[in-house]
Amino acid sequence: MRKIIISLSLLVAVCFGASAQQALWGGQNIVSPEIKADNTVTFRYVAPKARTVQVSGDFIKPTKTKINWGGREIEMDVPVPVDMVEKDGIWEYTTEALPSELYSYSFVVDGTPNVKDPNNVYLIRDVASVTNVFIIGGGQADLYSVHDVPHGSVTRRWYSSPTLGYDRRITIYTPAGYETGKLKYPVLYLLHGAGGDEEAWIALGRTAQIMDNLIAEGKAKPMIVVMTNGNPQQQAAPGETQEGFYKPAMMGGAPATQPKATFVEAFPDVIAFVESNYRVIKKKSGRAVAGLSMGGYHSQTLSMTYPNTFDYVGIFSAGGIRGDGQDEAVNLLKAQRDNGFKLYWIACGNTDFLYQGVIDYMKKLDEIQFPYKYRESDGGHIWRNWRVYLGEFVPMLF
Amino acid sequence: MRKIIISLSLLVAVCFGASAQQALWGGQNIVSPEIKADNTVTFRYVAPKARTVQVSGDFIKPTKTKINWGGREIEMDVPVPVDMVEKDGIWEYTTEALPSELYSYSFVVDGTPNVKDPNNVYLIRDVASVTNVFIIGGGQADLYSVHDVPHGSVTRRWYSSPTLGYDRRITIYTPAGYETGKLKYPVLYLLHGAGGDEEAWIALGRTAQIMDNLIAEGKAKPMIVVMTNGNPQQQAAPGETQEGFYKPAMMGGAPATQPKATFVEAFPDVIAFVESNYRVIKKKSGRAVAGLSMGGYHSQTLSMTYPNTFDYVGIFSAGGIRGDGQDEAVNLLKAQRDNGFKLYWIACGNTDFLYQGVIDYMKKLDEIQFPYKYRESDGGHIWRNWRVYLGEFVPMLF
Repeated sequence: MRKIIISLSLLVAVCFGASAQQALWGGQNIVSPEIKADNTVTFRYVAPKARTVQVSGDFIKPTKTKINWGGREIEMDVPVPVDMVEKDGIWEYTTEALPSELYSYSFVVDGTPNVKDPNNVYLIRDVASVTNVFIIGGGQADLYSVHDVPHGSVTRRWYSSPTLGYDRRITIYTPAGYETGKLKYPVLYLLHGAGGDEEAWIALGRTAQIMDNLIAEGKAKPMIVVMTNGNPQQQAAPGETQEGFYKPAMMGGAPATQPKATFVEAFPDVIAFVESNYRVIKKKSGRAVAGLSMGGYHSQTLSMTYPNTFDYVGIFSAGGIRGDGQDEAVNLLKAQRDNGFKLYWIACGNTDFLYQGVIDYMKKLDEIQFPYKYRESDGGHIWRNWRVYLGEFVPMLF
Repeated sequence: MRKIIISLSLLVAVCFGASAQQALWGGQNIVSPEIKADNTVTFRYVAPKARTVQVSGDFIKPTKTKINWGGREIEMDVPVPVDMVEKDGIWEYTTEALPSELYSYSFVVDGTPNVKDPNNVYLIRDVASVTNVFIIGGGQADLYSVHDVPHGSVTRRWYSSPTLGYDRRITIYTPAGYETGKLKYPVLYLLHGAGGDEEAWIALGRTAQIMDNLIAEGKAKPMIVVMTNGNPQQQAAPGETQEGFYKPAMMGGAPATQPKATFVEAFPDVIAFVESNYRVIKKKSGRAVAGLSMGGYHSQTLSMTYPNTFDYVGIFSAGGIRGDGQDEAVNLLKAQRDNGFKLYWIACGNTDFLYQGVIDYMKKLDEIQFPYKYRESDGGHIWRNWRVYLGEFVPMLF
């Protein structure tokens, strides 16, 4: 077989030529980001004619910055881009030693922001922005990395939502062994934040890697994770709909239409789909719901609106009861309390702009003796926290 | 429900603030690419301090260009970047009216190539390069777009390859209705080119959209499409392995290791996995194999090495018999001919650098009265052709 027929090495060589025809190479023989043994990271960007090149990203300690936001001045933790230094046309910046984490970054070239690193093919979209990513291993981020363990499957498929009146896209993680086994599995419904979609948790959330690793270590029970689209006016993530490769709403495209129902009203369609298409435990003790930010609000609301549906609730970085309907909410929470459940887990970063809302919400829960657990972390309204929370929440389930 | 509990609009507004905290917006209120009603396309790039900005992409008619390739001068069809014009810090270029197609592009800023468009979140990796993409509808590319039709599922999962000695990642398309039905389906094994992986056909190949649309129109039979990784030294696509977010081999990273077997030798592991995990027709009449470039070579070789396995063979833009082993190949082809099959379909672009090899291969087939069909298209060794070929090949199957 080895010597056979068509010289594969020649063909591959020729196909490399084909690649050139399509300009498949980044074309630059430099390494960026270069992750060194001491966990310092060097970024490089080739731009001999640029006057300034900076790098921005979540490896930079954020600075409290006043931002004009919709005419209102608010203070936010923002990473301020750092200057890179040019030598022979290559701009460089080396970080301090970074803690183990998954990081996002981009360059600012002559003041133009959001310039991707052509030497790094790893890009993740978050809402309406795409950034390069890299991982520093040896700690927390090992949970987000691929290891030599049994791997679950990740399926993108569509389900029918009669309540909303159209088919919608959904992402589903099934644990290793699901397809060839006979067991029934519990289900975690995992919800994204405002502007996100059914790709958010599987991309920046690293859900498949986290689940694979926790299950392999025996720290979490094998379960199915359902990542639905929390925007009832959307059929699917940007680019996955009939609208084509439109500019996402948060970049000024695809104006929102008025949906026929709220996400919470339409959620029974998701459960009905999952429970008729997968071998799952169809009772409260086999269902969990958790989400970040808007998805945390969704988890709160779903769990009190359908008090016989979820025994486990995770509320990540979400504010509490506000505005109208406080009395109604309190009544629903009391009913949920009386109805019982196994876990109501609230988590928030101590510099999150929603932090005070979370504290106020827990005061309300205390007033009605509503049982919950609280996890406070460092940091703000950021994916680092949500990955950490997922990794801590999942082992408590089922 | 509408008035309930937590003011969703307020929460969403606040979460938009959260987005700002993460710099989720592209931050530029311009549209790029802007696709106009007459199918001209305007690209825009904000760079007030740049001296030159150009746009490159496959919408540009390629020019024959001499390239120094590994010390050897070869002539290739290469798109030459076109100059953009600056006004008020925004660089612009408008194309002629473009035929319906999926296009890739990037910017060249002050000579630095491969700069992505920050106003376009749609990026596809091809081998070791990432480019922005857009679609011009109204013709061929409607086949590559999402329509309001029943959608199949796309699953990324892992299978065990005892022959290679490790688990490997695989992408599987199942047609709409597969999960809840009882029918057995035929299978198309669809193979990528050199440097590609199990993401190639589903990303730039638009396999899921092509299959959904052809099946919905009644032009293709419902079938399962299996997209495996053709590099036996790889477990998975870049970033999906234990190696982490390494620099792909073609960018100078991840040195190839010597695999225990060739892709062709290990292929029975793929079939065994598919046939024990899916409801499929387990005979020759229910199996097709097709591939582009190196995957075309793989399809040739698989179909003659295992002459009782595939009734349908598609060879896209692949050269023919070369080097050593010609006699052995001719003997295998004669046996394959005598054994019989239903379709042997060869396709190539008339400016493909492998074109002459394809012509020579067909001469060899003619000499031994080996039956085949030939489809010649315009253009070179490019994804446009491979999407077209897939759309024409699939309706002839099963």
